Amino acid sequence: MAKQKKQPRPKAMTPKGFRDYFGAEVTQRSEMLRAIGAVYHRYGFEALETAGVETVEALGKFLPDVDRPNEGVFAWQEDESDWLALRYDLTAPLARVYAQHRNDLPTPYRRYAMGPVWRNEKPGPGRYRQFYQCDADTVGSASMAADAEICAMLSDTLEAVGIARGDYVVRVNNRKVLNGVMEVAGVLDPSDPEAKAHERGIVLRAIDKLDRLGVAGVRALLGAGRKDESGDFTDGAGLSDEQADIVIGFIEARGDTGAATVARLHELVQGSDIGVQGVNELETIAELLSAGGYGPDRIVIDPSVVRGLGYYTGPVYEAELTFEIFDEKGRKRQFGSVAGGGRYDDLVKRFTGQEVPATGISIGVDRLLAALREKGRIESRDVGPVVVTVMDRDRMADYQAMVAELRNAGIRAEVYLGNPKNFGNQLKYADRRRSPIAIIEGGDEKAAGIVQIKDLILGAQIAENATLEEWKERPSQIEAPRNQLVATVRAMLDRQS
Amino acid sequence: MAKQKKQPRPKAMTPKGFRDYFGAEVTQRSEMLRAIGAVYHRYGFEALETAGVETVEALGKFLPDVDRPNEGVFAWQEDESDWLALRYDLTAPLARVYAQHRNDLPTPYRRYAMGPVWRNEKPGPGRYRQFYQCDADTVGSASMAADAEICAMLSDTLEAVGIARGDYVVRVNNRKVLNGVMEVAGVLDPSDPEAKAHERGIVLRAIDKLDRLGVAGVRALLGAGRKDESGDFTDGAGLSDEQADIVIGFIEARGDTGAATVARLHELVQGSDIGVQGVNELETIAELLSAGGYGPDRIVIDPSVVRGLGYYTGPVYEAELTFEIFDEKGRKRQFGSVAGGGRYDDLVKRFTGQEVPATGISIGVDRLLAALREKGRIESRDVGPVVVTVMDRDRMADYQAMVAELRNAGIRAEVYLGNPKNFGNQLKYADRRRSPIAIIEGGDEKAAGIVQIKDLILGAQIAENATLEEWKERPSQIEAPRNQLVATVRAMLDRQS
Repeated sequence: MAKQKKQPRPKAMTPKGFRDYFGAEVTQRSEMLRAIGAVYHRYGFEALETAGVETVEALGKFLPDVDRPNEGVFAWQEDESDWLALRYDLTAPLARVYAQHRNDLPTPYRRYAMGPVWRNEKPGPGRYRQFYQCDADTVGSASMAADAEICAMLSDTLEAVGIARGDYVVRVNNRKVLNGVMEVAGVLDPSDPEAKAHERGIVLRAIDKLDRLGVAGVRALLGAGRKDESGDFTDGAGLSDEQADIVIGFIEARGDTGAATVARLHELVQGSDIGVQGVNELETIAELLSAGGYGPDRIVIDPSVVRGLGYYTGPVYEAELTFEIFDEKGRKRQFGSVAGGGRYDDLVKRFTGQEVPATGISIGVDRLLAALREKGRIESRDVGPVVVTVMDRDRMADYQAMVAELRNAGIRAEVYLGNPKNFGNQLKYADRRRSPIAIIEGGDEKAAGIVQIKDLILGAQIAENATLEEWKERPSQIEAPRNQLVATVRAMLDRQS
Repeated sequence: MAKQKKQPRPKAMTPKGFRDYFGAEVTQRSEMLRAIGAVYHRYGFEALETAGVETVEALGKFLPDVDRPNEGVFAWQEDESDWLALRYDLTAPLARVYAQHRNDLPTPYRRYAMGPVWRNEKPGPGRYRQFYQCDADTVGSASMAADAEICAMLSDTLEAVGIARGDYVVRVNNRKVLNGVMEVAGVLDPSDPEAKAHERGIVLRAIDKLDRLGVAGVRALLGAGRKDESGDFTDGAGLSDEQADIVIGFIEARGDTGAATVARLHELVQGSDIGVQGVNELETIAELLSAGGYGPDRIVIDPSVVRGLGYYTGPVYEAELTFEIFDEKGRKRQFGSVAGGGRYDDLVKRFTGQEVPATGISIGVDRLLAALREKGRIESRDVGPVVVTVMDRDRMADYQAMVAELRNAGIRAEVYLGNPKNFGNQLKYADRRRSPIAIIEGGDEKAAGIVQIKDLILGAQIAENATLEEWKERPSQIEAPRNQLVATVRAMLDRQS
């Protein structure tokens, strides 16, 4: 008889680009999503949760920056004809839902959605193939009031999760204004919109590099081109100085108030219908925000925002954290963008043939959590449970009674469930759990009707810093009558916090 | 030139077996998960969130009741060698995580996890291919205290989400006791454990039908077999009357208290080592629960529980709701099981070769939500926002200011963002949104410094029931000074609730 072949053991590993989240990483994200959801709800938005799986047909063309279908998504064949795929964002499912249920949904439809999305991309440091998105969109309203509302809500949301006013700014720009500037500068002809697309691409990328290259660098890229420090040459858009002046004027148009910025933009887009329309839209948004009390300390009209300008059709918004952090190389830098969005007016057209206007934002929840941890606003680990140690294996029922009393009083607590033989292991366990308190009840204590209550946080502090005298003066372990267990633990927890 | 082929429009449909969740369906589930998580946390359990995607290798053999690999899961090939799959439960990922991170995790490791799982099965009414699971497991403890704790936590959890004491019961049984009974009845030989597996299968299925067939029906299946009303004959296990008596004695062993049940079981398993061990385990659990204050009004030792007995290796638990509901055919029936679990002692063996004991439960969140809705404990839809109507399109900034005031006061509110031309459409919209209140400020009101505040809930009641006199006496629309907007709305909301 052939010997049965032994299967090799499977590897216990997450797939490449996926990760596990433990303890506070999970609960803090839940709390953040809950806080965000509460603001969205207050603004009248309704929750929507779709499945992780959609038909490839319904998802359609995938990531905006990828042309080949199936590129960037996890997909598999369901049967001979149907392909299924994991959603790569929350906007494509919204389009499908709105087209599918439009007769039952209110119009306009304000909806929010939170959950994981999947990208079949090469993973990198800090780049995962599953991550959370948290979106809010208003479908079916062409009114600038919808855009203004999204910006105000974004501002309220950032403050609700713990970003102080002054530590963030919501910047607003408009695709149409940029198109107007392009038209005035002679690189966009409304009667032949495909011409000079290459030049416009260079202009857009040049503007996006303003932070890094400064005005002179951008000007070089708008003109003949630019050689960087390494000697590499980047082709320019070939604009004349006069043409470049118009673009530079645009990105420098930001004034002290929205009204001042809008006034300058009005001058710049003279002669372009689309440009005038875009500036009027920005003006309306600025007025509505001002009426709602959202001043430039929170939301600004900022023509230098270009991210997403290629994708959106009208207003675009971006939320940036303005405080400085140290990057991995120890250099100071601004934390940067944590949310972005804009208006896109063809949400469901591919399903229904109808143009339905929509506008919305997506918040990068994990980046926002990272920011709060950087600022020390949230602890990256939480406090562990009170641990009831097991001195006498046969009296497990006594320990169970203690832990039940503590839990019933709302105190996080557990009884040690490992092998109780080695008491040192129990204290090591409590340490690994970051337990604030350990309860000890041996035979002598039981006979005397008392329990030992050990302050593990004070104990650790004393062990690190105290002199022998201090050690004696500040005992980290106290005795309490058994019937005072809950009250004594609660008092100790209050003192610790 | 060939005419470009027109692509047909994609269908806006969820894939077969998947569905969308709207509004309160989403937020009520979030609230329930939050409430459950709070109890788990209080018990010292730590959150764990794994990705939806695992390697097929790590998932291993799939659903316990399915032998062919890939059956029952959504899987796809990542590259030449690796297959990935969507997780089908939360236990397989726990096994992978514990094997992967065991050096960094505390032992015992109490963890909870909540999230969607995917099953590639034929969908049916109420059976979806993505659904939520909500699990808690203790890994690395062989102590019955771990099992008792899980049962107590399950009881606390049900009460925390709104199931009143008396409306549920947690039943506990033990696989080893059943094995002992099988041994005593002569259908299990510990020295040849594979023999008579067929008979034992029939016995197990017969016990599971006790509710439906009664003792006589079960007895027939234990013996020669049973003909049902339709005339179909089901083969029996071929037990003698004496053998059948032992099995029947087992399923009828439940006494008034855990101690009484355990005493009877002790008699039944005399002579079987495994049986005695199982009864001792049940006895320990009963004692620990009693010490924690969990009496038979919440948790009972019940030998008639067999679900999962084929899968688990020691104690098993099941939570059942005991109140009656009407099924789809209008018949009264008990709501039934909403959670189940047990002990399984080979969690990570396939990864590490080591046996690691584990015990845990899984709560069916969607069933629990359905139960609360049946009992009227939660509304299936929530109240909509206050709607600020738009009487004058040019004064959007005024309406924006009102809605900002309301939101800043914590009141859910929105301004109407559709085309404001037809005022009737605005009230229809408010109705569809289940808005409690509409705010109206036309030119006359603006000039007089007032707003109209319309009680839509009272209005609907009056429209349905009131006589003309009552209508006049109880105006559903009141005037308020503009600067009393928030206070007046708040008072009206308070009156409504």
